[in-house]
Amino acid sequence: MSSYDQFLSPLGRNLHESVLRKMGQVIASRTGDLISFAAGYPDPTGFPWDAFREIASELLSGKDGSVLQYGPTRGYRPLLESILGVLTTRGIKTDLPEVMTTSGSQQGLDLIARVLIAPGDAVLVEVPTYTGAIAAFRNAQCQLIGVQQDADGINLEALDATLMRERAAGKRVNLLYLVPNFQNPAGIILSVPKRVRLLEWAERRNMLIVEDDPYGDLYFDDVTSVANTRPLKADDRDGRVIYLSTFSKTLAPGFRVAWVAAPAAIVERFDTAKQSMDLMCGILDQRVVHQSIVRGVLDRQAEPLRKLYRMRRDVMELTLRAQFGDRLTWNAPRGGFFLWAKLPDGFECESLLAKAMEHGVIFVIGSAFCVDGSGHDRIRLSFSWPTPDRIREGVQRLAAAMQPAMAR
Amino acid sequence: MSSYDQFLSPLGRNLHESVLRKMGQVIASRTGDLISFAAGYPDPTGFPWDAFREIASELLSGKDGSVLQYGPTRGYRPLLESILGVLTTRGIKTDLPEVMTTSGSQQGLDLIARVLIAPGDAVLVEVPTYTGAIAAFRNAQCQLIGVQQDADGINLEALDATLMRERAAGKRVNLLYLVPNFQNPAGIILSVPKRVRLLEWAERRNMLIVEDDPYGDLYFDDVTSVANTRPLKADDRDGRVIYLSTFSKTLAPGFRVAWVAAPAAIVERFDTAKQSMDLMCGILDQRVVHQSIVRGVLDRQAEPLRKLYRMRRDVMELTLRAQFGDRLTWNAPRGGFFLWAKLPDGFECESLLAKAMEHGVIFVIGSAFCVDGSGHDRIRLSFSWPTPDRIREGVQRLAAAMQPAMAR
Repeated sequence: MSSYDQFLSPLGRNLHESVLRKMGQVIASRTGDLISFAAGYPDPTGFPWDAFREIASELLSGKDGSVLQYGPTRGYRPLLESILGVLTTRGIKTDLPEVMTTSGSQQGLDLIARVLIAPGDAVLVEVPTYTGAIAAFRNAQCQLIGVQQDADGINLEALDATLMRERAAGKRVNLLYLVPNFQNPAGIILSVPKRVRLLEWAERRNMLIVEDDPYGDLYFDDVTSVANTRPLKADDRDGRVIYLSTFSKTLAPGFRVAWVAAPAAIVERFDTAKQSMDLMCGILDQRVVHQSIVRGVLDRQAEPLRKLYRMRRDVMELTLRAQFGDRLTWNAPRGGFFLWAKLPDGFECESLLAKAMEHGVIFVIGSAFCVDGSGHDRIRLSFSWPTPDRIREGVQRLAAAMQPAMAR
Repeated sequence: MSSYDQFLSPLGRNLHESVLRKMGQVIASRTGDLISFAAGYPDPTGFPWDAFREIASELLSGKDGSVLQYGPTRGYRPLLESILGVLTTRGIKTDLPEVMTTSGSQQGLDLIARVLIAPGDAVLVEVPTYTGAIAAFRNAQCQLIGVQQDADGINLEALDATLMRERAAGKRVNLLYLVPNFQNPAGIILSVPKRVRLLEWAERRNMLIVEDDPYGDLYFDDVTSVANTRPLKADDRDGRVIYLSTFSKTLAPGFRVAWVAAPAAIVERFDTAKQSMDLMCGILDQRVVHQSIVRGVLDRQAEPLRKLYRMRRDVMELTLRAQFGDRLTWNAPRGGFFLWAKLPDGFECESLLAKAMEHGVIFVIGSAFCVDGSGHDRIRLSFSWPTPDRIREGVQRLAAAMQPAMAR
């Protein structure tokens, strides 16, 4: 058969690709030396290899068959209990019926898309926002409505005006998606007063908030304190917040162990949906993560990782300033993996990426993060994976790619 | 908030639960001694623990950071190459663009549901058929149409008549779902002549066939040979077959490593869909499975597992015959994990299950596998996990649960 188009479902015909995944394919297919500021990969030299090896060896002794057996969809129960402990340290008090594991936070986003988004719904997101959420939500055939950001997070007046406008137009609008801590891609943090006001707003307007928090532990303590990262979920008295977090950035992404904390009635639905999606998360992975928590490995990770990524941010900011002066501008990242830069006048991220690839450096185009068609004057630079030398070299390549036009 | 119903999507309101998963919860919540003939769990004493431990230790040395890093959605490339080799031993010639990994075959079924099933479609399945497929397909809001089985597999005349009837009624019908080898739950095998005729039929009627083959390696060589298990996909000249298989039964289910082999255009769509579903399968899991193939562990598994499960089948059949004589009947399982039994007149599986639980034994009710409302006189007994002593004891408990009524 030559074409399978006739067999596709409407979704199959209109799938939204992840821009980041596509960049991954570009990297994989390109030969030669390439420095990537594109994907937000953690640095594997920061993974606790010795602890993982020891834990895996013990688990795989064969004494406990359940280590590699089928297990409950909701997750390995002792891991869920450990996750309650992790949540407690973030100020979130929950109970077992309110948590479940997901295969990466991406699966949490997909569960939200399937269980809570009806075709034709409007879903509110920041401009810019995380591409993985854009792809998952769009595949639920909703409309994504962008709300502008200030330096301290989403603009609350614009948010409410947007909601009222969409509802007045007859749209069903139930969800706001946010990355409050070290926003992907903008690197900013949502201020504490705004967090309080957002919860009041959600109750007043009968909204649910999806709080995506992969980077909360990775704050840079020269400009942020742990108090600034307190999740909205910690003060969610009315059950309005669906909280997503992960061990991908603090332990390792290869385990695909993330979790959702949400009202029990919603978790119950997620559980049922996940049964027909993949039955369960990898059980060895869950057991390794569980032991990493129990043995204090996770706790010991946070401080060195904060130092590691803060140092990389320093290198990137210093080199960018040295190379570009004030022609490239950005909000100083206060945690996380990303720097969101505004290009000089006359530059446009798509054509710059083509040029940059010729010079052996890549980034993610800003427009990929913007649901309102903007972002063509922005690029996202990730400083988490390349070594300091590679960061310096990559920034120089970027400058070289921009040189002829900047000189004009 | 007290109720979240208002926030649910149409799918979120109408999710189909997996009966097997529900049984798992029943088992987990029940205290006391319970023998389970319910879930089709492999026996963990058959897992190659020593090899896994050695492989995991080497992989987690820290020398290769990619072992725990993000990886390609389609799967770890050397694993995909190894899977091509596994497929070759089954007579299937494919190339890299035609394979991808999935998080269990359940995710393969979910990908099919999302990419190929439109709401309102009719999808053809056997009566009985696998509950995980029922749940995944129903969640795509299609209608499942049952086709009767003969002792040598699906009845081809009924199949064609059903298709013609549904199409004449205006339905879009593109998919037939089959478990040709050691059908779950019926335990039967689709005959070779029927396989050939099915491929001709698919081409003539412009249909796709979903061939789910988790048990193909686990044939019982007293009644089956490897030649009987040759997949339809091996003779799929026209690109009509979407083939699913897994390492869950031959290595271990805890890794969640399964795969799909299908026309490249369909795999391409699955890849895009999976990007927004979970980004990728666990990479450590994929690496362990890859090394298990490369080092010959997988090859060495097959023969002892065939012996192990054949012996368990023997114990179950012998004990059933001793306890029930000819009052319980079944097709002799020719491979796999399951025995599909017909209850004596006057028995009904739902009430028997309640009674059986009181006696400390469980199974899966037949009606869970039948999309046409039948199956109330059937039960599925899994012999894969309990030891021979537990199988004997479980069958005795089942007999005790049925005793008063049978005596009448």
